Amino acid sequence: MPEPHFTFSSDILSGDSADVYFLRTHEVLRREGVDPTVTMELFPSRPGVLCGIREALALLRAALGETIQESELRVEAMEEGAPILPKQVALRLTGRYQLFGIYETALLGILSHSTGWATMARACVEAADPIPVYSFGARHVHPRVAPILDYAAIVGGCASGSTSAGARLAGRPPAGTMPHALILLLGDTVTVAKAFDRAMPPEVPRTVLVDTFHDEAEESLRVATALGRRLQSVRLDTPGERGGVTVDLVREVRARLDQAGHGHVQIFVSGGVTVQRLRQFRESGVPIAGFGVGEAISSAPPIDFTADVKAIAGRPVAKRGRIPGLTPNPALREVSL
Amino acid sequence: MPEPHFTFSSDILSGDSADVYFLRTHEVLRREGVDPTVTMELFPSRPGVLCGIREALALLRAALGETIQESELRVEAMEEGAPILPKQVALRLTGRYQLFGIYETALLGILSHSTGWATMARACVEAADPIPVYSFGARHVHPRVAPILDYAAIVGGCASGSTSAGARLAGRPPAGTMPHALILLLGDTVTVAKAFDRAMPPEVPRTVLVDTFHDEAEESLRVATALGRRLQSVRLDTPGERGGVTVDLVREVRARLDQAGHGHVQIFVSGGVTVQRLRQFRESGVPIAGFGVGEAISSAPPIDFTADVKAIAGRPVAKRGRIPGLTPNPALREVSL
Amino acid sequence: MPEPHFTFSSDILSGDSADVYFLRTHEVLRREGVDPTVTMELFPSRPGVLCGIREALALLRAALGETIQESELRVEAMEEGAPILPKQVALRLTGRYQLFGIYETALLGILSHSTGWATMARACVEAADPIPVYSFGARHVHPRVAPILDYAAIVGGCASGSTSAGARLAGRPPAGTMPHALILLLGDTVTVAKAFDRAMPPEVPRTVLVDTFHDEAEESLRVATALGRRLQSVRLDTPGERGGVTVDLVREVRARLDQAGHGHVQIFVSGGVTVQRLRQFRESGVPIAGFGVGEAISSAPPIDFTADVKAIAGRPVAKRGRIPGLTPNPALREVSL
Amino acid sequence: MPEPHFTFSSDILSGDSADVYFLRTHEVLRREGVDPTVTMELFPSRPGVLCGIREALALLRAALGETIQESELRVEAMEEGAPILPKQVALRLTGRYQLFGIYETALLGILSHSTGWATMARACVEAADPIPVYSFGARHVHPRVAPILDYAAIVGGCASGSTSAGARLAGRPPAGTMPHALILLLGDTVTVAKAFDRAMPPEVPRTVLVDTFHDEAEESLRVATALGRRLQSVRLDTPGERGGVTVDLVREVRARLDQAGHGHVQIFVSGGVTVQRLRQFRESGVPIAGFGVGEAISSAPPIDFTADVKAIAGRPVAKRGRIPGLTPNPALREVSL
Amino acid sequence: MPEPHFTFSSDILSGDSADVYFLRTHEVLRREGVDPTVTMELFPSRPGVLCGIREALALLRAALGETIQESELRVEAMEEGAPILPKQVALRLTGRYQLFGIYETALLGILSHSTGWATMARACVEAADPIPVYSFGARHVHPRVAPILDYAAIVGGCASGSTSAGARLAGRPPAGTMPHALILLLGDTVTVAKAFDRAMPPEVPRTVLVDTFHDEAEESLRVATALGRRLQSVRLDTPGERGGVTVDLVREVRARLDQAGHGHVQIFVSGGVTVQRLRQFRESGVPIAGFGVGEAISSAPPIDFTADVKAIAGRPVAKRGRIPGLTPNPALREVSL
Amino acid sequence: MPEPHFTFSSDILSGDSADVYFLRTHEVLRREGVDPTVTMELFPSRPGVLCGIREALALLRAALGETIQESELRVEAMEEGAPILPKQVALRLTGRYQLFGIYETALLGILSHSTGWATMARACVEAADPIPVYSFGARHVHPRVAPILDYAAIVGGCASGSTSAGARLAGRPPAGTMPHALILLLGDTVTVAKAFDRAMPPEVPRTVLVDTFHDEAEESLRVATALGRRLQSVRLDTPGERGGVTVDLVREVRARLDQAGHGHVQIFVSGGVTVQRLRQFRESGVPIAGFGVGEAISSAPPIDFTADVKAIAGRPVAKRGRIPGLTPNPALREVSL
Repeated sequence: MPEPHFTFSSDILSGDSADVYFLRTHEVLRREGVDPTVTMELFPSRPGVLCGIREALALLRAALGETIQESELRVEAMEEGAPILPKQVALRLTGRYQLFGIYETALLGILSHSTGWATMARACVEAADPIPVYSFGARHVHPRVAPILDYAAIVGGCASGSTSAGARLAGRPPAGTMPHALILLLGDTVTVAKAFDRAMPPEVPRTVLVDTFHDEAEESLRVATALGRRLQSVRLDTPGERGGVTVDLVREVRARLDQAGHGHVQIFVSGGVTVQRLRQFRESGVPIAGFGVGEAISSAPPIDFTADVKAIAGRPVAKRGRIPGLTPNPALREVSL
Repeated sequence: MPEPHFTFSSDILSGDSADVYFLRTHEVLRREGVDPTVTMELFPSRPGVLCGIREALALLRAALGETIQESELRVEAMEEGAPILPKQVALRLTGRYQLFGIYETALLGILSHSTGWATMARACVEAADPIPVYSFGARHVHPRVAPILDYAAIVGGCASGSTSAGARLAGRPPAGTMPHALILLLGDTVTVAKAFDRAMPPEVPRTVLVDTFHDEAEESLRVATALGRRLQSVRLDTPGERGGVTVDLVREVRARLDQAGHGHVQIFVSGGVTVQRLRQFRESGVPIAGFGVGEAISSAPPIDFTADVKAIAGRPVAKRGRIPGLTPNPALREVSL
Repeated sequence: MPEPHFTFSSDILSGDSADVYFLRTHEVLRREGVDPTVTMELFPSRPGVLCGIREALALLRAALGETIQESELRVEAMEEGAPILPKQVALRLTGRYQLFGIYETALLGILSHSTGWATMARACVEAADPIPVYSFGARHVHPRVAPILDYAAIVGGCASGSTSAGARLAGRPPAGTMPHALILLLGDTVTVAKAFDRAMPPEVPRTVLVDTFHDEAEESLRVATALGRRLQSVRLDTPGERGGVTVDLVREVRARLDQAGHGHVQIFVSGGVTVQRLRQFRESGVPIAGFGVGEAISSAPPIDFTADVKAIAGRPVAKRGRIPGLTPNPALREVSL
Repeated sequence: MPEPHFTFSSDILSGDSADVYFLRTHEVLRREGVDPTVTMELFPSRPGVLCGIREALALLRAALGETIQESELRVEAMEEGAPILPKQVALRLTGRYQLFGIYETALLGILSHSTGWATMARACVEAADPIPVYSFGARHVHPRVAPILDYAAIVGGCASGSTSAGARLAGRPPAGTMPHALILLLGDTVTVAKAFDRAMPPEVPRTVLVDTFHDEAEESLRVATALGRRLQSVRLDTPGERGGVTVDLVREVRARLDQAGHGHVQIFVSGGVTVQRLRQFRESGVPIAGFGVGEAISSAPPIDFTADVKAIAGRPVAKRGRIPGLTPNPALREVSL
Repeated sequence: MPEPHFTFSSDILSGDSADVYFLRTHEVLRREGVDPTVTMELFPSRPGVLCGIREALALLRAALGETIQESELRVEAMEEGAPILPKQVALRLTGRYQLFGIYETALLGILSHSTGWATMARACVEAADPIPVYSFGARHVHPRVAPILDYAAIVGGCASGSTSAGARLAGRPPAGTMPHALILLLGDTVTVAKAFDRAMPPEVPRTVLVDTFHDEAEESLRVATALGRRLQSVRLDTPGERGGVTVDLVREVRARLDQAGHGHVQIFVSGGVTVQRLRQFRESGVPIAGFGVGEAISSAPPIDFTADVKAIAGRPVAKRGRIPGLTPNPALREVSL
Repeated sequence: MPEPHFTFSSDILSGDSADVYFLRTHEVLRREGVDPTVTMELFPSRPGVLCGIREALALLRAALGETIQESELRVEAMEEGAPILPKQVALRLTGRYQLFGIYETALLGILSHSTGWATMARACVEAADPIPVYSFGARHVHPRVAPILDYAAIVGGCASGSTSAGARLAGRPPAGTMPHALILLLGDTVTVAKAFDRAMPPEVPRTVLVDTFHDEAEESLRVATALGRRLQSVRLDTPGERGGVTVDLVREVRARLDQAGHGHVQIFVSGGVTVQRLRQFRESGVPIAGFGVGEAISSAPPIDFTADVKAIAGRPVAKRGRIPGLTPNPALREVSL
């Protein structure tokens, strides 16, 4: 994966989106003239797939990069995408507290939210393995973070995501077929299939959604007949009101396509796909070309990260309930901003 | 609540953060020369407290406001903060499809994420009622949406949130006391209490965190003795490693403060507060001045919204599984962009 | 309900289908010259809707009616269809033991099997009330008892059953539409609808099965257009592989029929209907003309009946575990064979 | 097992006990002049022990045997008693539809009911193995099917059944001892034991029921003393009101018989025996000569079979939800009527 | 209830059976010359029926009564048998610590153990109400505390107990019939019944145990015939190996006694009686003269009591986790030793 | 373990604490002149660790030892502390019934209560292994049996108990540190630590309780600094109101002691310790010097023992439900009183 390009709004850089008490802390320390060198450690409360490290470093770079010398801030970090355990230190900062204190909220938020999504994506990918999984959850999250969601899902193992911005962060082409709206507007699936085929550049796969108006099996055959060898796959997205996409449905569509000589047409499945259902599909052995997974990934709860000051001027400290001093973690690597 | 000011990045306005298949739909329709007047309805899958409507309207305004006349797009919407049922239409748009088709992902995402947070905030507020609840979850979400989280929490009933930007969206002063880091840096809670009192403007409440170094009851008494009538409250945030904040702890600190003549000092509770624990605190009857609730709100799963084209050129349509035509909803009001 | 006409094979009348130890008992008593007047009581182990009493009396009549005088056998019975409690006596026989001893197995079997079916039918009828329920379970039971099943289901409250012989026992016309086989053979649902309409006498309702080849909503509209006012109802029997019949499906078909001006066409539901799903349909309020219930009734376990000798020559007796002497039951009426 | 002799009533042969819609289908097809050659497959919904195949073939023979030539109907079937999986084809018929269409209900009913009983019998036999199990459930089912129940139980692995007709179908001698009624009539267990011994031919085992009047252990000793070496076994059938037959009771009776020198007398157990209790008895290791199992087998729910037309005039067909064309099954064998 | 007479061994009075750290505390305080006036409060952790207060006071009287003046120790206590809530103060002592410090273990133990038994006895009595319950649990507890168990059970509501010493503590006659051993030794229940009747003084009820050798119903009739009007009741104590005593058994024995003209003979039930089974018996409505309850009461876990020093020299104190100072409790009454 | 010295009150020796029906049996047998030689067997209903055998033998010795010759009573017993199975005979007595009949209640009670405690102690010891467990439950049981509890706990594997009398029975020094009361009285933990150190003889370990006034970690460091190498361990007994003692707390105290150079100070844990929590502590791997377990052992329910007469004058007998005659048990050894 090439180095992604993250951008930060002025809200984030100014501390306006931070917990206000960090701004107040900044003011108190300034007036008291206190600013020792401290070591702060950031670690999660639950196990998962670490994500957000690159963006966290990018934030420090954007906030401090031009104003400080390298010797002023020592940064140690684990690798993006690495498995991480509870209380394992993902990021360790050593420098004067006032340099980075107001970014605690932002750093924690980046790591918590991204790690939550990457971890759930990994669970989906493992359940579907070796069938590829695509992140289709952009519609459930605020558009400010939709690209972040897709990036995290890809870090967690997804083949790609549905947003251009998100896929670009991860250096992948975005994934998408056609929505029900297009079929409703043109009024017939075969008409849409042909128009789509005419309009799209060759690198866009010809995948046609087949559950809008008619029975899926029937429509699959109509579309396959119309596009012939140009049809790459059909997408089943049957709504819950019609029973959703089941193993039996995939098996039947497969059989009917094969019987009609359309063995080359693959089947793509989306709609209400959960980890449990991914396992059922895989265990059933029905041939599936890919899964579009939305809510299962996008509704993953953040994995709560905590930041602890563990040393002041080289002396181990901690609040009650924590062990004073640095926590050993051989997976940490020093990185330069 | 005054009208909040929402901003949108160019990613959102350009469709770069949208599902790519809406961009492809745009291209297919353009080449086919099809652009009928449609009615699209957005509705949730689960009941909740509707949030995001104002931002959704702001997005339409930002994207279209200057380029179209009012007659080109009819917008009907429910009110921000209203209770909403499954399949109840929150937002209905009528106009040429190409005007707004590429914003479907963003509109759904704004409504899904915000409604998820507002709904969980309401559950917390009801469990704590009449004790006020403050949104302390910024650290668990990406900083791009931390202010959105606080705004949604306040729509759901919270008294305020911890981020300046989020509180400002809702027209409230932000809420915050002091972090453990400040106490570790100055080395003693009483020292911090005095420095904080010196540095802060009068409108900032003197609320001191009392679990960093010593027993909470002991520290509360030390701080109360040091600040006297200037101390407004103590904050209990005992870590899980030390049993967390319990009803018994609050009751004891209350009794010891009272026995020492500090009856005016209130108690603020944070740390691992869930809906269930809010109910326990309330049912116990121990006097609490406020709750800081983080993960319980910030990890609320989005409430999935769907957008359906329900009429084309005035004719009822729907995909299989949905009822063609407009869904009656007397709670909808026409709004002008 | 008119008096049903039950027939009995020679196996039953000869004791060949009885537990062999009753034949051995007959032989032992004969050789010992013992044949006192006894009172035998038959009662169930679980509560239910009593069924089989009429057939039990018909069996006694067929076996003994011509050979004995009325004074030789006193028969007391509860009414067919009455609610019955555990250990409540449904049938009491007083006469010489050798007269009826070998029929104990048959009498118990008739009551156990019929009461089991009638009881479950009642549960379905109550769950669906006031929508009528039809017994469609003949295919799950041996054809020797398929008519008995339908008769018991009607005693339990069903509107009718699917077998001619069973419906006749209960004095009702049989219920039935058309099977999938007919539609497969003629190749199209509309073709079948017209042929059926041509072939059937006027009293047979025009109910057309609409899930064989195409989407149910689409096919319903095709059939309604073809038959017009002659169409009474459509039957939804969607297989489990396609999600079965759901509340959402019925609601959509209803809406689409109404929107197309076919408000007079009713909807009949069958396939995998259980007591729980009957309750869901009823609570949803979707308008349904009737339910076809198969396995839920036909797989009802028999309700075990027991026969106890409770008096010999007027003297109370019982085996260990039972109270000697007659069990009071005001619901018993003396009947004459 | 020799070929059993099944008989069919005129109701079954005429279609009077069939679902009426098959008769209506017959009429529609006749008027339309449609009668193609079809292939119909019958398969179960759940796994089990296949039973009813022989009777199904006998039905086809009885209905068609004399009127058609062998070439008109191709019949393929699995073997009676074979294990069968969900959707595995048990019976496949190829011929003109009108030949056998009206027997669909009867064929399904025979297979469903018989397979249900045989499958549960197998579960009991496996739980008790190697102690033999006898089918004592005739009293819970309608006497028309009591012999069918016994036959199916023996196909499932039971040593025999309690009805003469059922045992004869399976070519076994029926199993039975003496009922409580006989002991009540003669007034004393020892009196009965002697009368039974006098009356029965030598091949009937001398098994005496010992729980009617007195404690089982006490009565066992009385009977053993009275009959000496002529006593083969005692049967324990303690009613639930007295705690039923338990492992402890069997163990004690065994010990007391042994201590009194009646080591040759075996113990037979009946009454409320379930699969779970069979396992408990077996695991306890107490020596038992046999089990009489009633309700556990007779209340087994039918295993639902379905009949699908899968080819018409050699062309694969199927309704939605099913795979068109013949389902491969190497366990099928062609049979001649 | 008259004042019971409790005795204390020298182990208890010397502190030899106390936690040794109280003896060490005594020594440390003695050497330090510290012995302030303190107030100690004893309270339970769970709700219950308070028992042991009288014995606790008797212990203080026995240990201190002769050596101190009344003014030296102020004693406040709740009443024996009162309902008590968690943390409600059952006993409060004010005096020099060294006077009573070494008795903390003994006082807590008396209250914990006795309150546990009394509380469970109350649950049994309420479940059986209005049928009397007798404490038959002496055989499950160490003989040193068997009388204490019976006393606590009677405080909890039992009619009496089985030990002479325990019943005497509560001022009741002990309850007991005859053990299985007596019947085994004399070899026949009727023989025992007659011998018991000859030997016992008139005030001992003639209650005969009827399950030793023969069936309970049979034996009840034999005994009733033998003793006639002198027989007061039969006791059913059927062992678990024979199904225990069930509602059905009691109902049958009652019916058979009534049918034989022994309506005056009552039925007493013992053996494996739990709170749940008491409820079943009561709800069944079968007439029972009394229940003997053993393990259900004797295995009641102690209800943990705690002793806290809450004031020293009139100043409120407490360890962390407890509220300093005296806990208000209007149910406390001052008592004099 | 040396032979413990058990004492018996006159209540026990006279039968005054026995079930009164054994006294009545004694009287009946005396008047009838019946006193055969019998064999009585005592056995438990559940598996466990046998305890109480030594005290049972001591009771027989105290009651009979001087009045009978060895030949008059044959005693066979299993070993104290042996594992025992349901119905395995722990004690067998052969002699004239009147010699020991009235001690049945006492013998059963000694075995039931002691075996219950020893069995639960064993479960704790196994869960904590290899960390030693100390019995701290004296305060939950009546002081008459507190030493018996400690003895049984040690038989079950505990290292010692908290009462002097109990530890002496088992030949161990008692275990105990200091109670909260001592610290409250002297007002400061360090003051107490020094006074304790001055007052106690050298063999008493310097273990200081550190949760009374201040945070445990803070107090541990203060005490360690004050006593230096003389401090053996600190005891954590944090009340439930402050979260109890957790793995995290022990880990932190350990780390802080180590960081301050007090690696020699061990940590002892008490308060609310259950089998489940012992497993958690052990699995966590935190170094702990010992556990004080109270309620988990002291509230163990007695393991019900039963005494059966199994032979009279050498002839096997038993009541219904039991096997007549002696039960083989190779673990029995003949012992002389």
